Formats: sequence, structure tokens, C-alpha cells
Amino acid sequence: MNKSHENTALSFERVLFFSDAVFAIVITLLVLELKAPHMDRAVFTEEAMRHELFDLLPKFLGFVYSFFIVGLLWIEHHRIFRYIVDWDFGLVARNLLFLLFVAFIPFPTALFSENYYSRTAFILYAGCFGLAALGKLWVWRYAVSKRETMLAADVDDELIKQISMRSLAVPIVCLIAIGLSFIAVAFGGFAFPLIPLVANLLYRKKKEVTA
Amino acid sequence: MNKSHENTALSFERVLFFSDAVFAIVITLLVLELKAPHMDRAVFTEEAMRHELFDLLPKFLGFVYSFFIVGLLWIEHHRIFRYIVDWDFGLVARNLLFLLFVAFIPFPTALFSENYYSRTAFILYAGCFGLAALGKLWVWRYAVSKRETMLAADVDDELIKQISMRSLAVPIVCLIAIGLSFIAVAFGGFAFPLIPLVANLLYRKKKEVTA
Amino acid sequence: MNKSHENTALSFERVLFFSDAVFAIVITLLVLELKAPHMDRAVFTEEAMRHELFDLLPKFLGFVYSFFIVGLLWIEHHRIFRYIVDWDFGLVARNLLFLLFVAFIPFPTALFSENYYSRTAFILYAGCFGLAALGKLWVWRYAVSKRETMLAADVDDELIKQISMRSLAVPIVCLIAIGLSFIAVAFGGFAFPLIPLVANLLYRKKKEVTA
Amino acid sequence: MNKSHENTALSFERVLFFSDAVFAIVITLLVLELKAPHMDRAVFTEEAMRHELFDLLPKFLGFVYSFFIVGLLWIEHHRIFRYIVDWDFGLVARNLLFLLFVAFIPFPTALFSENYYSRTAFILYAGCFGLAALGKLWVWRYAVSKRETMLAADVDDELIKQISMRSLAVPIVCLIAIGLSFIAVAFGGFAFPLIPLVANLLYRKKKEVTA
Repeated sequence: MNKSHENTALSFERVLFFSDAVFAIVITLLVLELKAPHMDRAVFTEEAMRHELFDLLPKFLGFVYSFFIVGLLWIEHHRIFRYIVDWDFGLVARNLLFLLFVAFIPFPTALFSENYYSRTAFILYAGCFGLAALGKLWVWRYAVSKRETMLAADVDDELIKQISMRSLAVPIVCLIAIGLSFIAVAFGGFAFPLIPLVANLLYRKKKEVTA
Repeated sequence: MNKSHENTALSFERVLFFSDAVFAIVITLLVLELKAPHMDRAVFTEEAMRHELFDLLPKFLGFVYSFFIVGLLWIEHHRIFRYIVDWDFGLVARNLLFLLFVAFIPFPTALFSENYYSRTAFILYAGCFGLAALGKLWVWRYAVSKRETMLAADVDDELIKQISMRSLAVPIVCLIAIGLSFIAVAFGGFAFPLIPLVANLLYRKKKEVTA
Repeated sequence: MNKSHENTALSFERVLFFSDAVFAIVITLLVLELKAPHMDRAVFTEEAMRHELFDLLPKFLGFVYSFFIVGLLWIEHHRIFRYIVDWDFGLVARNLLFLLFVAFIPFPTALFSENYYSRTAFILYAGCFGLAALGKLWVWRYAVSKRETMLAADVDDELIKQISMRSLAVPIVCLIAIGLSFIAVAFGGFAFPLIPLVANLLYRKKKEVTA
Repeated sequence: MNKSHENTALSFERVLFFSDAVFAIVITLLVLELKAPHMDRAVFTEEAMRHELFDLLPKFLGFVYSFFIVGLLWIEHHRIFRYIVDWDFGLVARNLLFLLFVAFIPFPTALFSENYYSRTAFILYAGCFGLAALGKLWVWRYAVSKRETMLAADVDDELIKQISMRSLAVPIVCLIAIGLSFIAVAFGGFAFPLIPLVANLLYRKKKEVTA
């Protein structure tokens, strides 16, 4: 078995397909944490139902928040894999570790939604996203370390730096969120909308002079 | 990084694959709301079992209804993406918002099946479908607004108008259904079979003169 | 919009992808019905655990049975779609109805596993498989009725007859199973292994004379 | 219908797609076994929450362990299907049996996580992985038995022997794990990290003399 054999032993397309499927399942499983309340017809009033649904508000917010953060991780995952043209067992193993954190997300989402006043739950929640984002960065840095063979020819230093720097936005915001949660748990969630801002602070594209 | 890079940073095929997977998972998760009743062998009679199953009728209907409405949204999603040939972050973001409503569908389905006498539950149910359909229309209008680059060359004004107008059928029927539910909750569901009729009222294809 | 537009408005590949995904999700969701027993460490004995697992035997059997019947439906679905080369809304709608019965399978599986002594549960179980198989036959007959455009050129009368006749095997065996269940519920399950035999009785390939 | 028809009656790509989807769903369903604890705000303390989460440690470990073993089975499944270029019903049937064990994995994972002190639960857990790995080996040996038509032309005896021998690593380690569990259940899990070592003992690649 020669080297080229080893490199293609795993069809890359299937690695991406597998990753996409895990993302799609995770993003859809999030809704299973929302248990529909049941009220017996005998005691039922519309007002009581509205009250029950209102009590589910933290869970709705958790669903929406996690949906968009998983969506963001999926978009970023695609972005880096657009530039990766070759792979090996090391890349697949790092990608699997990244997917472990993604697949785990429904748990901290459920935990924090159920106990939205718990700092411990919030730290697990923000920590899981931060670790997933770091896992993605690890995949990228591994590919960069084998740049000669793994990255597309038109990937330049500027682009590598841009992706690497901007990839730090989610982990940094998660750290800020955990820090804020020590003042008050409710403050933690306010940090997430900072992600695009921090990404821009970390790396701003130079003005392009287009012909 | 030049512009063409940005545009293809997300493989379009994967965006569609991801959307299809979310649809497939949602349509299959619906059955999980149907909890099989258990009767101990000691007290078991076939008649009691039939009675138990009969009590599940609203849930069966909810499953079938939601199955076909999700199926309809999937068919319509495909229809518009057949004409879209280019994309950007804005399109992917709008598509993600659309998928948020699709992924949420199992919750109002369960809620309304469990509390089929609740107007609040019905409004959430019909509202979720209406918002999903509006999300799809938003995706389409965004693509139309960037028509030069995003739509296939053979898409004419007539087709754009047809898809836009017919896309309003589901939101309008959902509004009618919510209106009817204020007379009696049971009436609300009768509106859904009107979808094809309303779609035809909104836009009727002109008689084609084929050579 | 010309006719060729209408016909390709739904990418066929995606219809198949969507069907495959529903099959894969259903076949994997079956395991969720198997709830792992929990024994507190204080009262735990290995013998009691073995006893608990032994009590789950009907559920294990239900899992294995449904797994292979869903697998069989998936194989048969592929077989017919290998010969279908064109499609329209009618075909997609019939395929969606077929998938409705496939997506429903986890419910009767759970119901019968929970109440393996109930004839009502068994009838729902066998009936669901029979209806799914009939749905598949309906898809096939619809394609045959539009044979000129929908079937591959090399599909001959012999092959059409073969697929149509053999497709009746699952519905017929389900009817036999339901009939047997009126003698004793436990007898019903014995009918399923007859599927290959009945398929051969319905259509036997002629001896081929190959050069 | 001639022979070549029969052979391609099942699109191979879809068999792989279906297998990949089952893997992705199983690996993502594992998290559903982790039920988030809920503490009422009235009695809530961060310390009690940390204690609750600490009690879930065996379940977290079960999740991580099963995630990586399913991941390993997926990588190995891909490896063998890279060399398989043709197929028949026999191959698909054996692959379905393999997937049965893969789809079953969430049950023994939940059972052992819930009852980490039970040898019975551990034997089912290790046994399921071992049987899945044997199922994969059966698929491979079947393809090898029809080597002329089913394997790629560049597959040599050396490679066949390598894959066959290394495939025994997981079943052997599972047997060792079951053996160790008779000393103490907690010892069983220590065997799994031996998988790469045993794989290397079973087959070591010869030093390659490259030009």
C-alpha cells in the first residue's frame, strides 16, 4: 500500500457529509428539550396555558440561542474546509474531537434552560461552545501545519491569519461570558452578541484596492 | 481574498444538504410525540387497548397534519432553490432563520396534540407554520433583490411573481385558521386544505400557447 | 415557464436523499424505545439485572424485527427508483405518503413491544408495514402508468410485472400475519419469514439462457 | 434483466450514504441519555448543582467512550469500503446486520452508564462493540471471497491480510475487557485503550523500501 492510498483511505466528502449530518441532527434535537405542557380539559383555561408557556421562556431562549451558535459553528466549519484539499488520520481525529463537543451541546443547553439561575450550568454551557470553537481552531492549525499538502494553493498568509484570528472570537466571548456570569448569571448571555464585534477587533480586512 | 472567494466560501450543495437533513429529521421526530400506551397483562383487554388508541386520535391527526405541512414546506423550499444559482452570507443567514421555524415545529405539534381544545396552542401551531412560510418567502425575496447574480438566467418576471404570490398562500391560510379558531378551536384546522385553492387564487398560470 | 422546467423543479436526487434520510432516522430511532433499566447500587444484584433484561426480550425482538422490515422496505424502495428516470409532483406526493407510513413505524413497534399480548397492537404493527409496502407499490404503478417518460428505456414488461408482483409479498404476508393473530397473537410474527417464499410464489424468474 | 442489472439494482453510493447517516444519528443520539438534572430555584445552591453533575460522571464517561468507539467503527467502515468496487444483495444484507449492532449501541451505553457497577451491563456493552466489529469483518471477508469482481484491482494479498488481521483488534480487546470485568467491573474499561496496540501486534506493516 503506497502513501497516496493512505491519504485517500477516507473519502473526504464523506467526512464532510458525516460532519454536516451531526450538525443537522444536533440543531434539530435541541427542540426535544422543549416538553409541551399538558393540561386536562377539566381544569383547562387559556390563561393558565399562556402562563405555562410563559414559564417555558428560558427554554425557548435557550433553544434559539443554541440554534444560532450551532449554526455559526457550522458556517465556520464550512469556511475552513473550503480551503482544505487533502487530509490524513490526524485531521479526521481532530475533527471527530470537534464533533464530540458539537454533539454534546444539547446537554448543557438543556441543563442551563432548566436551571437558568445556576452559574455552574452557565459555565458548562458557555464552556462547551468555547471548547467546540477551540476544537475547530485546532483542526485549522493542524491543516496549516501541513500547509504544503493540505491547503489549497491560493491560500495565502493573510487568509490563514484572518481565519485563525477570527476563530478566537467565540472562545474569547465565551470567556467574557463566564466572567460576567460571576457578577450575575443573567449577565453572561449578554456577551454572545459581541461575537461579530470581537471577530472584527481581532482581524480587520485591509482595504482592498480593486482594479 | 477576492470576491469570488467570499461567495463560494460556503459550498451551496452543503447548504441544501443541511436544509434537507433538518427537514428529514423534523418530519421523522414528529412520531416521537406519539407515546405508546402500556397496559399490564393482568388488566389488559383488547377493548381497553382500542379505547386507549382512540384517545390518541388528536395526536395521530397532529402527526399526519404536521407531516404533510412539513412536506409541503420542503417541496416549496426545493422549488425556490432550483432557481437560485449564487448565494452569500445574507442568504445563508435567512435560510438558517427559516430552518429555525422548521426545527421548532415538533413543539407546537406536540402542544396542540396534547391540548387540542386550547386556542393558544392552536395559534402557536398555525403561527409557526405561517412564520416558516414567511421565512421561505424572505429567502426568495432576498435572492430576487440580488437577481442579477443570484437567479438563473432563464428566470423571468412572470416566474418571480408566480413564486412570490403563491408563497403567500400558507401564511394567509394560517391567518384564516387563527381567525376561525376564535369561533371554535376545532374550526381552525379546517382552513389548511384551502392552501392549494388560495395559491391558485393568488396566481393563476396564463394559458400557455405551445408550438 | 416551459414543461421541462416543471419536471425538474424538484431535483430528483434530493427526493431520494430525503427518502434515504427518513429511512436512516427511523431505523435508528427504533432503539430509543429500549429504555435501559436502572437498579440502585444498594439493591443491585447481577441476577436481578439479568432478570430485568430478560423481561425486555419482547422489546429486543421488536427492535430486530422492525429493523429488518424497515431495511427490506429501504432495499425495495431503491430497487424501484433505479428504474425511474423522470418524475412529477404526483410521484413526489405518492412517495411522501409512502414515507408517512415509514416514519410512523416506531409507534406500532413501541406499542406492540410494550403490549406483545395485544391483538390490536399486532394488527396496527402488521398493518403499518403492509400499508407502507402498498404505498411503495402505488409509487411504482404511478411511474408505470407514465412509462413513456418516467421509466428507463431498458425496462421491459417482464421487469415491470416482476417488480409489481413481488411487491405484493409484504402486504400479503401482513394479511396472513393478521389472520394468524386471531388464532393466537404470538402466531402472527411467524408469518414474516414467509416474505421471500411468497415473493417467489408470486413471480419466479424464467430460466435465462445466456450466451 | 441481465446480470449487470441485478448488481447495480442498489446504488452503492446510497448504501454508503445510508450507513453514514446511521453512524451520524447513533453518535448524536448518545447525548440523549444524558438527562439534565433540574433543581427548583427555592432549594437551589451551586454546590448542590455541582454535586448533581458529579453524580453524572459515569454517564459523561459512557458518552465519550461510546462516541469514540462509534467513531472508530465509522473510520474502519470507510476504510474497507474504499476498496470495494462492486456489490450484491449478500453484501448489502451483511452490511445491514453490521448496522443493526451499530444502531443498538445507544442501549448498552445507557444501560452501563446507569448501572456502572453491573458486570452484566458491561458484558452487553463490550459484547455489542465486539459483535459490531465482527459484523464489519464479515462484510470484508464476504467481499474478499468475491475478490475478482468486488475488490479494486490494486488490492493485493498484503492489504487484504492487513485489514483482516487488524479488524480482529476490537473483538479481541472486547473479549479481554469482558475477562477483566470478572476481576472487577471497573477494570473492564481499561482494556479499550489497548485497541491500537493490539492492532499493531496483529499486523505490523513491513518496512517499505521506497525509491
